[in-house]
Amino acid sequence: MGVFSIFNRPPQPFRLSPTFSKLLLLFTVSGGGLVAYSESNSSNNDAIKSSQLDAKKKRVVVLGTGWAGTSFLKNIDGSIYDVRVVSPRNYFAFTPLLPSVTCGTVESRSIVEPIRNIIKKKSGDIKFWEAECVKIDAKNKKIHCHFNNEMHLEGNEDFLVEYDVLVIALGARSNTFNTPGVIEHCHFLKEIEDAQKIRRSIIDCFERASLPNLSEEERKKALHFVIVGGGPTGVEFSAELHDFIIEDLVNLYPMLQDLVKITVIQSGDHILNMFDGRISSFAEEKFKRDGIEVKTGFRVVSVSDKAITMKGKQNEGISSIEYGMVVWSTGIGTRPVIMDFMEQIGQKDRRALATDEWLRVHGCDNVYALGDCATIHQRKVMDDISEIFNVADKDKSGTLTVKEFQDVIDDICVRYPQVELYLKSKHMSSAVDLLNNSKLKDKEESEEIDIEGFKSALSHVDSQMKNLPATAQVAAQQGAYLARCFNHMKGCEDNPEGPLRFRQSGHHRFRPFLYKHFGQFAPLGGEQTAAELPGDWVSVGHSTQWLWYSVYASKQVSWRTRILVIGNWTRRFVFGRDSSRI
Amino acid sequence: MGVFSIFNRPPQPFRLSPTFSKLLLLFTVSGGGLVAYSESNSSNNDAIKSSQLDAKKKRVVVLGTGWAGTSFLKNIDGSIYDVRVVSPRNYFAFTPLLPSVTCGTVESRSIVEPIRNIIKKKSGDIKFWEAECVKIDAKNKKIHCHFNNEMHLEGNEDFLVEYDVLVIALGARSNTFNTPGVIEHCHFLKEIEDAQKIRRSIIDCFERASLPNLSEEERKKALHFVIVGGGPTGVEFSAELHDFIIEDLVNLYPMLQDLVKITVIQSGDHILNMFDGRISSFAEEKFKRDGIEVKTGFRVVSVSDKAITMKGKQNEGISSIEYGMVVWSTGIGTRPVIMDFMEQIGQKDRRALATDEWLRVHGCDNVYALGDCATIHQRKVMDDISEIFNVADKDKSGTLTVKEFQDVIDDICVRYPQVELYLKSKHMSSAVDLLNNSKLKDKEESEEIDIEGFKSALSHVDSQMKNLPATAQVAAQQGAYLARCFNHMKGCEDNPEGPLRFRQSGHHRFRPFLYKHFGQFAPLGGEQTAAELPGDWVSVGHSTQWLWYSVYASKQVSWRTRILVIGNWTRRFVFGRDSSRI
Repeated sequence: MGVFSIFNRPPQPFRLSPTFSKLLLLFTVSGGGLVAYSESNSSNNDAIKSSQLDAKKKRVVVLGTGWAGTSFLKNIDGSIYDVRVVSPRNYFAFTPLLPSVTCGTVESRSIVEPIRNIIKKKSGDIKFWEAECVKIDAKNKKIHCHFNNEMHLEGNEDFLVEYDVLVIALGARSNTFNTPGVIEHCHFLKEIEDAQKIRRSIIDCFERASLPNLSEEERKKALHFVIVGGGPTGVEFSAELHDFIIEDLVNLYPMLQDLVKITVIQSGDHILNMFDGRISSFAEEKFKRDGIEVKTGFRVVSVSDKAITMKGKQNEGISSIEYGMVVWSTGIGTRPVIMDFMEQIGQKDRRALATDEWLRVHGCDNVYALGDCATIHQRKVMDDISEIFNVADKDKSGTLTVKEFQDVIDDICVRYPQVELYLKSKHMSSAVDLLNNSKLKDKEESEEIDIEGFKSALSHVDSQMKNLPATAQVAAQQGAYLARCFNHMKGCEDNPEGPLRFRQSGHHRFRPFLYKHFGQFAPLGGEQTAAELPGDWVSVGHSTQWLWYSVYASKQVSWRTRILVIGNWTRRFVFGRDSSRI
Repeated sequence: MGVFSIFNRPPQPFRLSPTFSKLLLLFTVSGGGLVAYSESNSSNNDAIKSSQLDAKKKRVVVLGTGWAGTSFLKNIDGSIYDVRVVSPRNYFAFTPLLPSVTCGTVESRSIVEPIRNIIKKKSGDIKFWEAECVKIDAKNKKIHCHFNNEMHLEGNEDFLVEYDVLVIALGARSNTFNTPGVIEHCHFLKEIEDAQKIRRSIIDCFERASLPNLSEEERKKALHFVIVGGGPTGVEFSAELHDFIIEDLVNLYPMLQDLVKITVIQSGDHILNMFDGRISSFAEEKFKRDGIEVKTGFRVVSVSDKAITMKGKQNEGISSIEYGMVVWSTGIGTRPVIMDFMEQIGQKDRRALATDEWLRVHGCDNVYALGDCATIHQRKVMDDISEIFNVADKDKSGTLTVKEFQDVIDDICVRYPQVELYLKSKHMSSAVDLLNNSKLKDKEESEEIDIEGFKSALSHVDSQMKNLPATAQVAAQQGAYLARCFNHMKGCEDNPEGPLRFRQSGHHRFRPFLYKHFGQFAPLGGEQTAAELPGDWVSVGHSTQWLWYSVYASKQVSWRTRILVIGNWTRRFVFGRDSSRI
């Protein structure tokens, strides 16, 4: 039963005790594959039988079918594990195209793939249940689920699922920062349904403004589209909306052309401020040319049914603007079920579940978290500096030679990725350069370094520690990484592939998760896209738009959605976007 | 102002008096193009200006954008009339494909065309307002409209529209026959939204039945799909659902395959009983082979959240069946606004607005009704028999010669289409045969016939009078017919093209509306379709399915929707239907 405990997090209480392992094994063999707590006659003979057959397989429960969950699911080997996926959505959605769905450039059906299609293509026992996880009970290794659809039910919409290993990939929700009125009056842009609602709402605004009994003032108000948040989603939506209006809607509502206005409210000094400054400036200039007003340095303090109230950073006081539609896109917040779970495991008041570098949730056994609901808590080099020195100092001389350091440097770099980032930021070619600096200060001729010198040599590397962005790219890589670890669990027990353990003996079974950044796009409308590619390469313009088309087409989860998305783009070129209010 | 009065219905009060005409003209010129009763500052300068320019144009208000309204709109000449279209849907939907939308064979976006796209292609002043007509005030020639969308409003969502001529094409709603529980628990299949809801609901049933905590009994219940009504819509939906399940869903939910059941409840003795008996039998046999249960002779008496209660015709007593989803498709009922209007004009307790053969609403001036909200009240030959005889008896001899009869027979056939239907049903080649029968009975050698003989000769022709079916075909033909009448109003005033007036002098300005039946399809699933074509030609099978494909593709309202629909069909062949619950 120690299969998962080889991940070996330092605090001992997290490791399975032999007694508990035996009990768990007994329980698993005895057929408790899943226990339904419905009061009705739960004659789940099939389920119980298959559980008995697969009694030796670990039950892996995956929560969520977003980027992380689906990527895990696609890569996990169903012949090794009993996989159960629980999600309120029976499909995977290609969320980077959501802004395109809001204006009908791409249809919502084109960017979704049923989870069961993905399962069908895999071997092994994989089950999907469309339900929402409402509570994680880590103590009893159970999750509470709720089926919540439009069907008439008889009170048995709640059920329990037991797990041996839990993979939490529930994602995040929109963050309102508790601003009053946001939930009641604003649109969000996280789910397919949100995009569909926004699409209807845009048409509502135009139809509203076309009615005969309105004053010009009222028409203008109905056609004022406000986007709160100047991040990639908010900016892409603004650009899409602008294109939709000038390419399609003005032809159908010509009398309203001069009344439409788009405003982006951004609390920071620039929109797209997570991108290179050149991209921010280009975007701001393009928006200016397009007539999209960008209000930077404003924080929204409340939203009423008629107006948005905001506060300027430079003491401009409180100001209000009337609107027809608001889209709120200011970043991500924590789902209630995750908040509740964090409280259980002593992670209260965090934004996301803290995991170690192997995606294991801190303070909780056999639970993994990935994607937007989790952040990796990277260990600092300085916290382990003595242990690193001790391991490196093979001859226990109290000093480290360059040779000794070189022997462990690879393991250090794998275990603490911030070291490599620091070297890159300082344009150093090798970690030995770190020591050289320190040695020079210490004793000029010496080839060795003592613990104090070692500490001072590495004292700045932790400054390069960064949280990973909450993007699809990170989530997908984490899902694939975790599935690979699960699939190689047995083999890596004997032949660990991870770095040296500095605080214990031996090697880590796996390398810690390492994120590879492949760049990021920021579509700006008018067939222009900005891209920040690896190596600080910035690209802007029409050619980048075509790069965007090809990357997004190639990244589709199936050939079906790929062809549908390309078909939608073609349709848009030929016929424009549809403005029917459905 | 007498442009419309040349339609000349016999009762004089319906004709515009000269004084009223002058008043109306004055009012129109004075700029009251439309009066909004919003309390806000209605500075509709543009609207008023354009109304002043077009002051001489009649304001034609069209209610509804279904088959009748859209067909009228496509054909009306916008340079002659000031056309205003009011409808709660800003698109036209190709409703015959709705059953395909319920299962995702065709996407809802593929069968809708924005009304503004249609207007854009037309010249002249045509306006569209997305609002629901909540009251028709024929006395003051105004309609009350209500804008009812998800937008936040400030109390001015109601407005008035004035008209000179009103075209009512509001369609019908589903008829529940006041059966308790139907509105709360059943799906309908009239609007795009209905089809989308059904699609989600089908997936809900399958996801519900997949949950781990259900007994087999409960799974079976969730997967029991009941269709109430064995007409073309109900049967086509059943067939589509069956195809969706066996072609797509069983691959994704293999464990549920044996638990699914489809039941069609039909109050009559056969399904598709408006079709030829051969088609009914074929459909019933095919459904039997497919495992679709057809319960004929059962009337649903109530629907609860769990079960449908029904009563057999042959005193089987009351029985109940549990269901997962019910689709109610038993025919059409009257919309509340039409009921209210009928009460105003003395047509209380009717199912639909009664019009004359020129689609003019009885008891109401300058109001036309077409499509499912209206029925043509065809005059009987026997009611006008003396007038017909008098007009035909040119020499006022008191008897009719064959020659005299032949001179008016064409006019009779045009004015009373039942005559031609009667001849066809009796396999007579000419109307003179009618007289021959009568003469033989009367006086064998005489070439003449008196009023009594004439009456007896024509005494049976009215038996062939039939109400037109409530189909898209009828509505579309009526819309095109009425638009043509409106467009030719001026010209036909001088050169009437209609038949002789038998109850007054001169000719009718236009020929009465005559429906041409081009046949009807009944898709039965499994790439098989039944068709009843003109001339009692019945065709069933795969080749008819291809005829169906080509007819439905060719009948699309635009090239855009045509290509989208064909694209959807192709997609279904290649990838199957999507089962994502969105």
